[in-house]
Amino acid sequence: MQTDPRQTISEMCQNFYRQGWVSGTGGGISIRREDRVYMAPSGVEKEKIRPEDCFVVDLQGNILERPENPALKLTECAPLFLSAFELRNAGAVLHSHSSNIVLMTMLARRLDEELSVLEFTQLEMLKGIQGHGYYDTFELPVVDNTAHECDLTESLRRAMERFPDSPAVAVRNHGIYVWGPNEVKAKTQAECIDFVCEVYWKMRSAGIQSHLSAPATPASVS
Amino acid sequence: MQTDPRQTISEMCQNFYRQGWVSGTGGGISIRREDRVYMAPSGVEKEKIRPEDCFVVDLQGNILERPENPALKLTECAPLFLSAFELRNAGAVLHSHSSNIVLMTMLARRLDEELSVLEFTQLEMLKGIQGHGYYDTFELPVVDNTAHECDLTESLRRAMERFPDSPAVAVRNHGIYVWGPNEVKAKTQAECIDFVCEVYWKMRSAGIQSHLSAPATPASVS
Amino acid sequence: MQTDPRQTISEMCQNFYRQGWVSGTGGGISIRREDRVYMAPSGVEKEKIRPEDCFVVDLQGNILERPENPALKLTECAPLFLSAFELRNAGAVLHSHSSNIVLMTMLARRLDEELSVLEFTQLEMLKGIQGHGYYDTFELPVVDNTAHECDLTESLRRAMERFPDSPAVAVRNHGIYVWGPNEVKAKTQAECIDFVCEVYWKMRSAGIQSHLSAPATPASVS
Amino acid sequence: MQTDPRQTISEMCQNFYRQGWVSGTGGGISIRREDRVYMAPSGVEKEKIRPEDCFVVDLQGNILERPENPALKLTECAPLFLSAFELRNAGAVLHSHSSNIVLMTMLARRLDEELSVLEFTQLEMLKGIQGHGYYDTFELPVVDNTAHECDLTESLRRAMERFPDSPAVAVRNHGIYVWGPNEVKAKTQAECIDFVCEVYWKMRSAGIQSHLSAPATPASVS
Repeated sequence: MQTDPRQTISEMCQNFYRQGWVSGTGGGISIRREDRVYMAPSGVEKEKIRPEDCFVVDLQGNILERPENPALKLTECAPLFLSAFELRNAGAVLHSHSSNIVLMTMLARRLDEELSVLEFTQLEMLKGIQGHGYYDTFELPVVDNTAHECDLTESLRRAMERFPDSPAVAVRNHGIYVWGPNEVKAKTQAECIDFVCEVYWKMRSAGIQSHLSAPATPASVS
Repeated sequence: MQTDPRQTISEMCQNFYRQGWVSGTGGGISIRREDRVYMAPSGVEKEKIRPEDCFVVDLQGNILERPENPALKLTECAPLFLSAFELRNAGAVLHSHSSNIVLMTMLARRLDEELSVLEFTQLEMLKGIQGHGYYDTFELPVVDNTAHECDLTESLRRAMERFPDSPAVAVRNHGIYVWGPNEVKAKTQAECIDFVCEVYWKMRSAGIQSHLSAPATPASVS
Repeated sequence: MQTDPRQTISEMCQNFYRQGWVSGTGGGISIRREDRVYMAPSGVEKEKIRPEDCFVVDLQGNILERPENPALKLTECAPLFLSAFELRNAGAVLHSHSSNIVLMTMLARRLDEELSVLEFTQLEMLKGIQGHGYYDTFELPVVDNTAHECDLTESLRRAMERFPDSPAVAVRNHGIYVWGPNEVKAKTQAECIDFVCEVYWKMRSAGIQSHLSAPATPASVS
Repeated sequence: MQTDPRQTISEMCQNFYRQGWVSGTGGGISIRREDRVYMAPSGVEKEKIRPEDCFVVDLQGNILERPENPALKLTECAPLFLSAFELRNAGAVLHSHSSNIVLMTMLARRLDEELSVLEFTQLEMLKGIQGHGYYDTFELPVVDNTAHECDLTESLRRAMERFPDSPAVAVRNHGIYVWGPNEVKAKTQAECIDFVCEVYWKMRSAGIQSHLSAPATPASVS
């Protein structure tokens, strides 16, 4: 017995707001139930979304149900969300504007004119990212940002194809899209990715070059 | 059907307190309905303001309604708030003492004896600031602080005239005034400005000089 | 009509816990009503204090009323709180273990074998500290910590006498005692002091030497 | 009259989530009542655990009661929790994935191929760690992480035997296990350890080499 996705979207956006992921109307989440996709509206305070403010679209993005309030528009992330549903058979996709993500994208290693990558390894929290163990290297693709959100769609799709093991694609100076088989998995994976970004950033800020085990160098802090 | 502005002021101040913008009785918000302006009282814990503690003034600052509690005084930000209503036809103006803002004002580039500027570009969150896209440069004017808050009025007005594209004026070592066509827009723009200040400060603290796209320099963090 | 001080202590400790000032059973607050002083118990989770857990003592520290729970003991801060009531005619005294304070005490300038000082100026939030304007220098005395909290009493009293303009005395590597004519003023002054410590620490961490106005040196962050 | 441990586990996990200790399904807590041990399930959002989701095991780890929901599995921390109950006669053991802990483990001084140590002294919050006073040195053992959580058991037990004065063992790049005679003491000690890690990390990041008293070197921050 699943909960009403509109109610879930409302509650999850409140959690994301408290986490600092959706301030200033950025970010959001979409949840799929079979061939119906529930999405938050665009340009509103995410922490104040009520269930009745949500849209329902089909897998091609056609609006099936819209909220009563005529001022509300569909989220601009729609094509990006739908790409994850299509290419990954996701059950939910979220979009976070967390500063931890934004800062780490600045350190991404460039691969070509539209794509970079961040690599993380040997942090326990990586285990919360599907398919990754402690000693694995989690490769997070980072696409360059564009003037308009919908223009990200093609580069996001290419990044997803090039990095099939990642449940996320980050966007330089912007944020991240994270999906999963359901909304809980999307959220928990997003929390793990946010955590490793926070930790790597703090390591970098403190001048720590490596945290890999068996460094053999005695170091002490008194 | 609009909500009671007094109730909104009370709720928004609680949000601002949780965000760290109005601790120690600093900061606040004013909301305009036609020719009546609702303002919080001065020198009280902002997170404890009740609707009945609010003042109502006219557009010249004359008190139309005052709270029952005789100990309450009108906010000292009144002339500053009224300047934004007058010069920008704002619907709401807020004042934040966020440490993210205070710290960034210390890095502002000086233009003359009373005015400096901060420049931000290529962060997605800038899109939440009216009139700014991802590749635009958001210029945030920063006026020097004064011994008394009302003495800021003239320099704040000059900054507003010199920087018509900014929905905000920051005050060095003090905080920021942010306005918008309504209280939601004032708050969300303030969140976006606070976010870009937090990110720029963390970049500066970590020694990152530039985050602009296509750096072509492969950099990796292991 | 004043609220029940026991209720206030309970609520304020919950606020302090959320602010990070009283984790791990550290910190607390005492409130005076004429010649009765209400204090929190020792060694309990401060965010879970119920009104009936509070002690009432006289101005010499003799217990007038104790909570029903026989396991509860009077706070070890009692002599320190009572010193502020005596020497400053305070209405309330709080004790915070905030990490912002602890970190800044490490930078205090030593004056003699038991006393150091921190100096803050030109931050708007200093106005929230009684008797201080924007251009004033707030001198915060810092006494060295001791093995037992009650052993701080003498040095704390000497610091209070030497720095009559400060509503607080910090303790190196430990925290701070802040008082005021009532509990609201004690809390709001504590918030202002905590804020300026947070800002000075972040300036120091980022290598900023001075934030004083009219630096005349054009600096820009892109 | 003790509260229902299942209810306590549910409430404490919500507190831990707010503290940032159990995001992304990591971390947890177990509580012992005589020979029955209550534990949270594995791989679920810790902040959403309901009392009826808890397991009850005996001191050897055999399941005595399991939740109705057949999808729930016993926490993978079970052998680690049980080791603390056995070797320390603990009343409760918690597991935190706090980033403050993870970062500090990177600075631990290596003792042998599986064990390192962190040393803390002269912070008031150390008094909240059983058996430690202000001038004592708290030695926190840090074992290397392994691919699977249960593989930590042997090294954790050896660390506990080698460092009998520590109520905790940290795991490099992973987190920490903290116990106490009851759940309150486990939590408050965990808060104190988290605090000293946060402070030491910030000192290290700011380049402060020592915070020990009587430095005799006048230093000032303006």
